[in-house]
Amino acid sequence: MQWYFVALLLTFLTSSQGILTTLSQSNGKYLYDYATVPFLAEVFKLVLSSLLVWRECQISPSTRMTTEWKSVRLYVVPSIIYLIHNNVQFATLTYVDASTYQIMGNLKIVTTGILFRLFLRRRLSNLQWMAIILLAVGTTTSQVKGCGEASCDSLFAAPIQGYMLGAVSACLSALAGVYTEFLMKKNNDSLYWQNVQLYTFGSIFNLARLVLDDYRGGYENGSWWQRLFNGYSITTWMVVLNLGSTGLLVSWLMKYADNIVKVYATSMAMLLTMVWSVYLFSFKPTLQLFLGIIICMMSLHMYFAPPNMLLDLPTQVRAAPESLKEVTVERRTDS
Amino acid sequence: MQWYFVALLLTFLTSSQGILTTLSQSNGKYLYDYATVPFLAEVFKLVLSSLLVWRECQISPSTRMTTEWKSVRLYVVPSIIYLIHNNVQFATLTYVDASTYQIMGNLKIVTTGILFRLFLRRRLSNLQWMAIILLAVGTTTSQVKGCGEASCDSLFAAPIQGYMLGAVSACLSALAGVYTEFLMKKNNDSLYWQNVQLYTFGSIFNLARLVLDDYRGGYENGSWWQRLFNGYSITTWMVVLNLGSTGLLVSWLMKYADNIVKVYATSMAMLLTMVWSVYLFSFKPTLQLFLGIIICMMSLHMYFAPPNMLLDLPTQVRAAPESLKEVTVERRTDS
Repeated sequence: MQWYFVALLLTFLTSSQGILTTLSQSNGKYLYDYATVPFLAEVFKLVLSSLLVWRECQISPSTRMTTEWKSVRLYVVPSIIYLIHNNVQFATLTYVDASTYQIMGNLKIVTTGILFRLFLRRRLSNLQWMAIILLAVGTTTSQVKGCGEASCDSLFAAPIQGYMLGAVSACLSALAGVYTEFLMKKNNDSLYWQNVQLYTFGSIFNLARLVLDDYRGGYENGSWWQRLFNGYSITTWMVVLNLGSTGLLVSWLMKYADNIVKVYATSMAMLLTMVWSVYLFSFKPTLQLFLGIIICMMSLHMYFAPPNMLLDLPTQVRAAPESLKEVTVERRTDS
Repeated sequence: MQWYFVALLLTFLTSSQGILTTLSQSNGKYLYDYATVPFLAEVFKLVLSSLLVWRECQISPSTRMTTEWKSVRLYVVPSIIYLIHNNVQFATLTYVDASTYQIMGNLKIVTTGILFRLFLRRRLSNLQWMAIILLAVGTTTSQVKGCGEASCDSLFAAPIQGYMLGAVSACLSALAGVYTEFLMKKNNDSLYWQNVQLYTFGSIFNLARLVLDDYRGGYENGSWWQRLFNGYSITTWMVVLNLGSTGLLVSWLMKYADNIVKVYATSMAMLLTMVWSVYLFSFKPTLQLFLGIIICMMSLHMYFAPPNMLLDLPTQVRAAPESLKEVTVERRTDS
């Protein structure tokens, strides 16, 4: 399978995530407990990966699976990072409003580039760095509030702690991605076996969260298993399947492509969601959405196009002002 | 003189143009007739260029000056294009409001690139084309209306004629620039002599406009020469000098650099004016101004940086997903 095909599929599935989640509501409210969705998605990924690793072992007994605890225990790290990230996110939202948090979220694109360079030691050209910055600028541009929208000058008005926590949040998010890439690429183990380890810890952490939420809430809504499928519609199940599928695609990309490919796919998905919303939810198209799309497309081309396609060309054009300068210098000396 | 030094000077002078014009007002009103300013600037440029060509002839009798009418008459063309442009601009503004017109004005950056390619037959690399589009996107981004600003949804709401006239306006503006570059570069004539021809026609056309305005207005405010220095303050004279100087710098760039350099200088000047306005006129800095500046800086670097600086790079990074794909294909075939 080509990596760009997977990236394209991830873009489409991720962009439909927001749409499906909105469609799964009734009159703007969830009839089911949304916290159960990520848990079920983790379980879905775990079950599917287990089946696949079992089939792989049957077909080819030489399937590579490192089962030492020294290696297995590393797969808990992404879950721990996400746990910390969720708490930092919660703390950030006590300082800044949701839309400022969303704008700051674009910082994750740049931090992913930085950690990708620092931890995975992957070098990027100047042009690729510029492309990454432009991707973050493009997604931010599309989110700039239009005139007539509520809550105006909050962006530069939050306390400094809010911005610092936002930056920490962006770093943690990037770290989880970069660490997962490290895990997936560190040996030639079967992808499915790696997934089984990843999603086992993922399921455990998600389950722990449900239990903890119940405990904190004093079992007001009963225990989590009583709420598990309550109010689930077909759309809710599609949300679960969608979330699980995108997770599996991300795993694939982490092993056979990289974090930057994933970042492009999810950024493009965000723009695509906004375009879909124009048709589905009569979301008003803004100039900034249009500009954001152009910027991100340029960024995509800058990052992935082969250098000879970008620079098919002419040293003589670039040199023009320089060479002409020589002419004028000569003439000045003459006179 | 280096072309980038001239471009930098042009950027600073152009950015101070808007500031000076605002400062030359009293309580938001012009105490002088603003239409006389471009005329005086043309006369200033004509006088200065005449003096310089006279001095040049004295120092070096071999100064190249083509005086055939066949050549001289071509210098009227930019003035004619500007005359048509002014009328199209007037017509456009009957269909769209001023801020939509300003947004559409950024199209001029792209049309300049296109005419530069078509008429002057200068080739640009893909990356340079992308840089030009990003420059237009960046200046547009900085002008996106923030929330809380008046007149909201007018951008996509104007009649189609408005947008078509806006496009015509952008083409005419680009054509004037490209034609001037053609004139300045078509032979090795002295720059000052070329300027004398250009500004003679410029002065005549500006004078004709003043006369015509008087005639149309039924001489209500008297004749133009009675209003010429009326209400002029030192700041007004600085506006005249500034406009004249930027004109001379543009001429220099047209001969020794090119239209794209000029477009970058004036676009950067627009952003610089907005930054200055934050300090001078307590203009509120917006997120979109900040984003626009980043985009334009990236564009500048993409267009002018030498290719080896942009792509210092490791083919192995770009190839990574491809080579990894090979691995997975092999593994699939095995199993």
